[in-house]
Amino acid sequence: MYGGGGAGENELLWSRRAAEEAEAVAAISCSGHGRAYVDGVLENGKPVCECNKCYKGPDCSQFRPDCVADADSDDPVFLEPYWMKHRAGSAVVVSGWHRMGSSFGHKSDISPRLRKQIQILHKVMGNAIPDPGFIVFGAGSTQLRTAAVYALTPFNSTSRTKVVASVPFDLEYELQTNLFRSADFEFAGDASTWINTSNTALNFIEFVASPNSIDGHLNKAVLNGSSVKTIYDHSYYWPHFTPITFPADEDVMIFSLSTLTGHAGSKFGWALIKDEQVYEKMHSFLGLNTGGVSEDAQLRAFKLLQVVLDGNGKEFHEFGYETMRKHWEQLSITLSVSNRFSLQRTSLQYCTFHQKAREASPAYAWVKCERKEDEDCYEVLKANGIGGRAGTKFLADKRHVRLSLINRQDDFDILIQKLESLVSQENGMATAI
Amino acid sequence: MYGGGGAGENELLWSRRAAEEAEAVAAISCSGHGRAYVDGVLENGKPVCECNKCYKGPDCSQFRPDCVADADSDDPVFLEPYWMKHRAGSAVVVSGWHRMGSSFGHKSDISPRLRKQIQILHKVMGNAIPDPGFIVFGAGSTQLRTAAVYALTPFNSTSRTKVVASVPFDLEYELQTNLFRSADFEFAGDASTWINTSNTALNFIEFVASPNSIDGHLNKAVLNGSSVKTIYDHSYYWPHFTPITFPADEDVMIFSLSTLTGHAGSKFGWALIKDEQVYEKMHSFLGLNTGGVSEDAQLRAFKLLQVVLDGNGKEFHEFGYETMRKHWEQLSITLSVSNRFSLQRTSLQYCTFHQKAREASPAYAWVKCERKEDEDCYEVLKANGIGGRAGTKFLADKRHVRLSLINRQDDFDILIQKLESLVSQENGMATAI
Repeated sequence: MYGGGGAGENELLWSRRAAEEAEAVAAISCSGHGRAYVDGVLENGKPVCECNKCYKGPDCSQFRPDCVADADSDDPVFLEPYWMKHRAGSAVVVSGWHRMGSSFGHKSDISPRLRKQIQILHKVMGNAIPDPGFIVFGAGSTQLRTAAVYALTPFNSTSRTKVVASVPFDLEYELQTNLFRSADFEFAGDASTWINTSNTALNFIEFVASPNSIDGHLNKAVLNGSSVKTIYDHSYYWPHFTPITFPADEDVMIFSLSTLTGHAGSKFGWALIKDEQVYEKMHSFLGLNTGGVSEDAQLRAFKLLQVVLDGNGKEFHEFGYETMRKHWEQLSITLSVSNRFSLQRTSLQYCTFHQKAREASPAYAWVKCERKEDEDCYEVLKANGIGGRAGTKFLADKRHVRLSLINRQDDFDILIQKLESLVSQENGMATAI
Repeated sequence: MYGGGGAGENELLWSRRAAEEAEAVAAISCSGHGRAYVDGVLENGKPVCECNKCYKGPDCSQFRPDCVADADSDDPVFLEPYWMKHRAGSAVVVSGWHRMGSSFGHKSDISPRLRKQIQILHKVMGNAIPDPGFIVFGAGSTQLRTAAVYALTPFNSTSRTKVVASVPFDLEYELQTNLFRSADFEFAGDASTWINTSNTALNFIEFVASPNSIDGHLNKAVLNGSSVKTIYDHSYYWPHFTPITFPADEDVMIFSLSTLTGHAGSKFGWALIKDEQVYEKMHSFLGLNTGGVSEDAQLRAFKLLQVVLDGNGKEFHEFGYETMRKHWEQLSITLSVSNRFSLQRTSLQYCTFHQKAREASPAYAWVKCERKEDEDCYEVLKANGIGGRAGTKFLADKRHVRLSLINRQDDFDILIQKLESLVSQENGMATAI
C-alpha cells in the first residue's frame, strides 16, 4: 500500500501542508504575551491569540490593569522560550498512521529508545541510578503515585495500610488515596505522628517528595522498618530547582516530564522500580486504569528528550537554572526590605551536574506573613492582587502561602511588581510611623 | 521572543527537518508487512522495520510458517490503510511549545474546537444526540468507565452499590471495579441475576455495552428503577460495525477514538453527560486520577476528526464499512461449510447513516465449537494456530471464543487461511466417514 518514493532533499510529498500550517500559526503575532495554536479557536479562518492572563486584545497587546498575578499554577511554562528557540530540533511530525496500535502489554510495551533515553538522562544528570531493573510509564506523577500505592499495599493485611507524608504536603495526596475508600489503604496524615506508634501490626506507605513541591526541602523518609514502604517523588529533583548532590537509589522513584521540560500538558512520567513484583503490580494497575500511556505523549517525550540531551544537557539546564536563579534573585531582593513577609531559606551546595556550588532555586516560594494581624496570608496577598495557594491546602498553617515561580515570564514580572508595591506600602507606613 | 517572519508559500523555516525525517522514515520499505516509526529502534542510523506478527526479516519480507494467527488483539488497525492514503490531511506538526500548560481545570479545560467537532460528528453519524449538556475527555473508554462508576455511586449509601453487566462481558469490568476494594461499590456479576431482588435498599450501576464488544449485540439495560444508574458504553456504535438505527440519548454515554479511527495507541475518549453533578464528579475523578488528558492526544484526535468529517464522513465510513463487510463475507463463506464451528447471527437493519439497509459487521466473531468433544474451543483453535480470546474471559462458556476481525489485513488473511485449513480437515474427515 505504501513504500518507496521517499522525500528528496528538497521535496516534501505529504508533510508540507501540515508544516506550512504549523509555521503559519506560529507566525501569528501575539505581542509576546500570548500564543496561537493549530487547534485553537478560529476567527477569520485564523486561530486566535490565546493571551497570557494579564493581557487581552486580538494580539494580546493590551495590559489588564485589574489583573491578579497568577502565582497558583504548577505548570513549569518558564521553559517555553527554550522550546521556541530550539524550534527546529523539537518539532515533530506525527503521521496519521503513527503507532495506531496500543503497545501496552506487548513485549514492546515501553519504547526501547525512550527507555534508553531516560537511562542516559539520569546518568548525565547524576540524579538517579539509571539501571533500577524496571521502568513503567504513566500519565505523569499523579497516576504513578496511585499505581505505587496500589502496588506496595500488602495483600490481605489485617488492617488498612496507612499512607502518610510529611507536612507540608499536597492535599491531593489525601484526596487521591481516599478516592475510592479502599478496604486496603487509607490516608493517615502527617508521617511524624506515627513514629512512636506501639501498634506493630500496622503497615505504612510513606510519600517522600524530595525536593518537596511546596517549600523545596529535600525531604527524607521519616518512618522506617520492615512494615514501611516508601514512594520517592523526585519530580522536582532536577538541576533547575536544586543542586544535585547524589544519585538517588531508592526502591520506587517517580519522575515527570512536566517538571523536567515544562510540558505539563503532555501528561508523561516514569517510575524507576527495583522489585519485579512491585513493577508487575504497577504495570497491571496502569493497564486497568488507562490501558497504558498515550503513544502521542511518548513520541513527544522522545523528541523533547533528544533536545534536552543534546550536548549532555548543558545548554538546556543552564537555561533552566539561570531563569530560576534570576527569579529567586529578584524575589529575594524584593522581599529583603520587608519585615512583613519572609521567605524559606535556600542552601548552597555542590551540584554534581553543574560541577560547582550552587544555591537551590526551588519552583515555589514558601512565603510567611510575619505580622500578628496577617493571620490569613493568602487573603492578605489576594487583597493585593496576588493569587497564590494557601498553606492550608498543604496541611500547613494560614500564615503560609505558596507562590509559583515557574509560570511564564509575564506572570512572574507582574508578581514581582505587585510584591514591590506591597512592600513599598509597608516601608511607607514604617516611615509614617 | 518569537513572532513575525512567517513561512512563505514555499519556504519552511523550522519544520523542514522534522518533515524530512518523517517522510524518510515513512519511505523505508517493509514489504507491506510492517512499518518503521520515527521513534523506532535504530540500525545503521535508520529505524528498523517493525514487522506484522507473521513476518520477519529486515524488510519484513519473510513469512513465518510457524506463526499463530493473532485474533486476540482489540486494536482496530484495520483502518491503517485509510490513514496512509490520507497522509497529507492527517499529518500534524507538533511544535516544541505546543500547549505546554495543562489546561485541566481551567475555563479552557476542553478544547472548544475538539468539543465542537465531536458534536458535529455525532450529528453527522446520527449515533447520539450531540448536545448532552456536558462532555468530559478521558484516556479512552477504560478510564471513563471508572470515572462514571465513581460519579454515579450514591454518597453514603448503607450498602455497597452493585456494579453489574450482561453476560458476555469483558472481565476487565470486574477487575477495574474491584481494583481498590472500594467501600462504596463492588462488582456483582451478571445483571439478570438481580432482576427480581427483594432487597429494595440496594443500589445498582449497570454497564451496557451497545454494541457489545464480544458478540456485537446491541444490548439494552436489564435493570431499571430509581435505584439503578446506567453507563452506556457506545464505543462500538459506529457505522463500520453496526447499522445506526437511532441516535442514542442516554444520561451517560461513553465513546472512544480508538474504535472510531483505529488509534488505540492515542488513548482518547469522551463521555456525553446530561447531569451537571455527574459531570462535576467525573471531572474531579479525572483530575485526581491523571490530571486530565494529554494535550498531544487531544491534538491528534482533533486532526484525525478533521479528516473523518471531510465530506460528512462518507468516504471514511465507506472504507471502514467495506473492509469490515469483506471480512464478514470471507469469514461467513469459510465457516458456512463447517458443522464444527458456528458464528453469531447478524441482522439486516436500515442504517440511517448509510441510508440503506445494511447487515451488521461486528468487530469480533463470536465462534462456538459445536462438537461435543470440543469442550474447550479456545484450546481447539490454539492447537490449530489460531489465537483468539477464550469465552471464559467474558464470563461465557468454554465453547465460545472471540476472534478479532479488526486487526491488520495480514493478520486477518492468516486467520482465514488457518480457518479454511481447519474446516477442510473437517470435511475431509466427513468424507472419510
